[in-house]
Amino acid sequence: MTRLELARSLKVTDEMKEAGLLEGVPAEHIRDGIASGTVIIARSRLRRSIKPLAIGRGLKTKVNANIGSSEDRTDIGEELKKLHAAIAAGADAVMDLSTGGDLDEIRRRIIKESSVPIGTVPVYQAALGAKKKGKSFVELTPEEFFEAVERHADDGVDFITVHCGVTMSAVEKAEKDNRVMGIVSRGGALTAEWMRFNGRENPLYEDFPRLVKIAKKYDMVLSLGDGLRPGCLKDSTDGAQIEELSTLGTLARRAVREGVQVMIEGPGHVPMDQIEANVLLEKRLSSGAPFYVLGPLVTDIAPGWDHITSAIGGAIAAASGADFLCYVTPSEHLRLPDVTDVRTGVIASRIAAHAGDIVKKAPGAIERDIQMSRARKRLDWDGQIRLSIDPATAGAIRKSSPPADADVCTMCGSLCAIKISGPVRSKDA
Amino acid sequence: MTRLELARSLKVTDEMKEAGLLEGVPAEHIRDGIASGTVIIARSRLRRSIKPLAIGRGLKTKVNANIGSSEDRTDIGEELKKLHAAIAAGADAVMDLSTGGDLDEIRRRIIKESSVPIGTVPVYQAALGAKKKGKSFVELTPEEFFEAVERHADDGVDFITVHCGVTMSAVEKAEKDNRVMGIVSRGGALTAEWMRFNGRENPLYEDFPRLVKIAKKYDMVLSLGDGLRPGCLKDSTDGAQIEELSTLGTLARRAVREGVQVMIEGPGHVPMDQIEANVLLEKRLSSGAPFYVLGPLVTDIAPGWDHITSAIGGAIAAASGADFLCYVTPSEHLRLPDVTDVRTGVIASRIAAHAGDIVKKAPGAIERDIQMSRARKRLDWDGQIRLSIDPATAGAIRKSSPPADADVCTMCGSLCAIKISGPVRSKDA
Repeated sequence: MTRLELARSLKVTDEMKEAGLLEGVPAEHIRDGIASGTVIIARSRLRRSIKPLAIGRGLKTKVNANIGSSEDRTDIGEELKKLHAAIAAGADAVMDLSTGGDLDEIRRRIIKESSVPIGTVPVYQAALGAKKKGKSFVELTPEEFFEAVERHADDGVDFITVHCGVTMSAVEKAEKDNRVMGIVSRGGALTAEWMRFNGRENPLYEDFPRLVKIAKKYDMVLSLGDGLRPGCLKDSTDGAQIEELSTLGTLARRAVREGVQVMIEGPGHVPMDQIEANVLLEKRLSSGAPFYVLGPLVTDIAPGWDHITSAIGGAIAAASGADFLCYVTPSEHLRLPDVTDVRTGVIASRIAAHAGDIVKKAPGAIERDIQMSRARKRLDWDGQIRLSIDPATAGAIRKSSPPADADVCTMCGSLCAIKISGPVRSKDA
Repeated sequence: MTRLELARSLKVTDEMKEAGLLEGVPAEHIRDGIASGTVIIARSRLRRSIKPLAIGRGLKTKVNANIGSSEDRTDIGEELKKLHAAIAAGADAVMDLSTGGDLDEIRRRIIKESSVPIGTVPVYQAALGAKKKGKSFVELTPEEFFEAVERHADDGVDFITVHCGVTMSAVEKAEKDNRVMGIVSRGGALTAEWMRFNGRENPLYEDFPRLVKIAKKYDMVLSLGDGLRPGCLKDSTDGAQIEELSTLGTLARRAVREGVQVMIEGPGHVPMDQIEANVLLEKRLSSGAPFYVLGPLVTDIAPGWDHITSAIGGAIAAASGADFLCYVTPSEHLRLPDVTDVRTGVIASRIAAHAGDIVKKAPGAIERDIQMSRARKRLDWDGQIRLSIDPATAGAIRKSSPPADADVCTMCGSLCAIKISGPVRSKDA
């Protein structure tokens, strides 16, 4: 039985208990969420050694870090460094999006070394496999799509992205919508090209039951990818995007009925005032499946700083009900991220998640801010550093500029407002 | 006559024309905004050499960078470097908040070298002047408060922060509200201590007409400071803060009646879901005076990363109608910022302002994103770098990781979605 089937039979498993403890909610909340498809636990049947990560309604917003080699950069050691940097910075999950070097070896090493759930996008491997065999991606058989999925599942991947909503009708709409950027998802672009060349429907849509079957076998999460997500603000929330979302919502409900956990992936590039509507639509069209958003980036003009554009969008998304944020690093749109980019991206995304959790009233969220504020009011610097989202950075900055009076900092000196007002005046502090 | 009086007499001055051109709006919009108190031009009568910076309703959101020495760090050369770094990074205005060294000299050098409006907080100088004379701040006479204001105005400062809303009643409320952090504004804390010691009302509140008179003489903007702003999420939007805001709204209307331009300063530390209400209240209580917010920071737990917490809050504030964002740097809460912090803070705040401007439909805002997206669709890398909010950083990241195929980047290589879909497929691109 899958955990969804167990939940539906009202069973509270040890895994649900453990996930509940980690989240600060009753195990029954986890169970009922899984049963209704509003909560998932991203852990393959093959990966009992990692902690069960619950994602969804009523829980803390989670953060994913994308790592992985590219054709231009194939250093497996570097990718493992990124994995450990992401986990150390507090990433809840990591996706291996490798597209260069020995993909099987990299994926297996990453799974082996990771203490957090691992996601992948099997279609990349299918595409690169075709290249290796000397043929074009568009010449792949539907069978080869599913073989890649099966291979990843069999390695113990905890969640896979499958672009099932890139249908002929939705692609046609993307073309008619006269988008500025067209299709910007790699998986989406590959799938659309395959369909165009072969004149037939997306195999992952047509034979969705086969995906469900594989996922069921491994109790793996299907992450329904948004291959038609907008690639710029101008293309946001257009007909093609919403048609795809609607398809994914239908497929999500079907998977849940079959006992398979799903989440839905979302944009991308979205103006601030459209983010809440995107979250609302996703929840409505999927009957509340967890929403996994990439950013969203609230402006297109900040390459080099897209960890910030996406922290803005991610915070609004989380506050509006998104459950899982995919980080974006400063190198987005410019190059493969390095280890420092990974760390920066994770922290920025964790800030967004936490800011959203305060609004969501996620268990324990605001309490942490109150603790920090009390440490500030006590002029307790060790406490402030310890309670920081990134103690290493906060500590290093403080240390870099020692004040004459250790009670204060070099910004205000004797004009420190807390010192002037008296550090313990407030009864609460 | 002040520019507000000129505007009220329906005069369109050359300054209004120039400001309108810079903003991409008709000069009449500037004039009518100034006349109604919803737009200001931050330029002292003594500073005709700088461009007229208009701030307010219907205009692009502006960004301020705080610089200035502290008791622990008094290097004037360093502060001038920060000034130029802030301007180079695109700051619209700079505040000199110096509290260490020869304050007069630093201020005058900064004013002399700055091509953007300069703001100050004269009460800091009053406080440090008291110390120099061997007395406590609380022993200052009301006269000495006004002398500091007059001295700054006479140096050509374009806007000054005056904490006129820190009244006995509001301070009492702050104490009764049982805040976690109490008073966290330096000016607010100093004023409250002075009032407590002397058992009398805030001179800047009691004798507001005298401030108006000074501002009128120099056609200087009064920036009504929020000395009781919340110092943590838990204290946000409480009775004391709102009482102060209400007082500032009343004073703002009074100043406008007298022909003096004002803006109102706002928080601070505010959860995401309270920001819009804060902007709305400010606009309502002041009859639409420009709103100048500090951040706001949407969580308390990210010292070392507060440029990001405040970019999230600033973007939401701007989208909700705030007009002017005061940047926050990565060193906030930890030390005096250095030159790199200043640059980082300005860019983060400009991203927030621009993201908000897209929602506000500020003139020319979304057009820039569309241009960038078209450059991306053309795989025009030079264009993408040029159109970036920070071309130096974007260019350096791209250059650091050259791809084998110059059309793409080292993230996606041959899997570049744009390359797969065809870079010129969309009719729009």
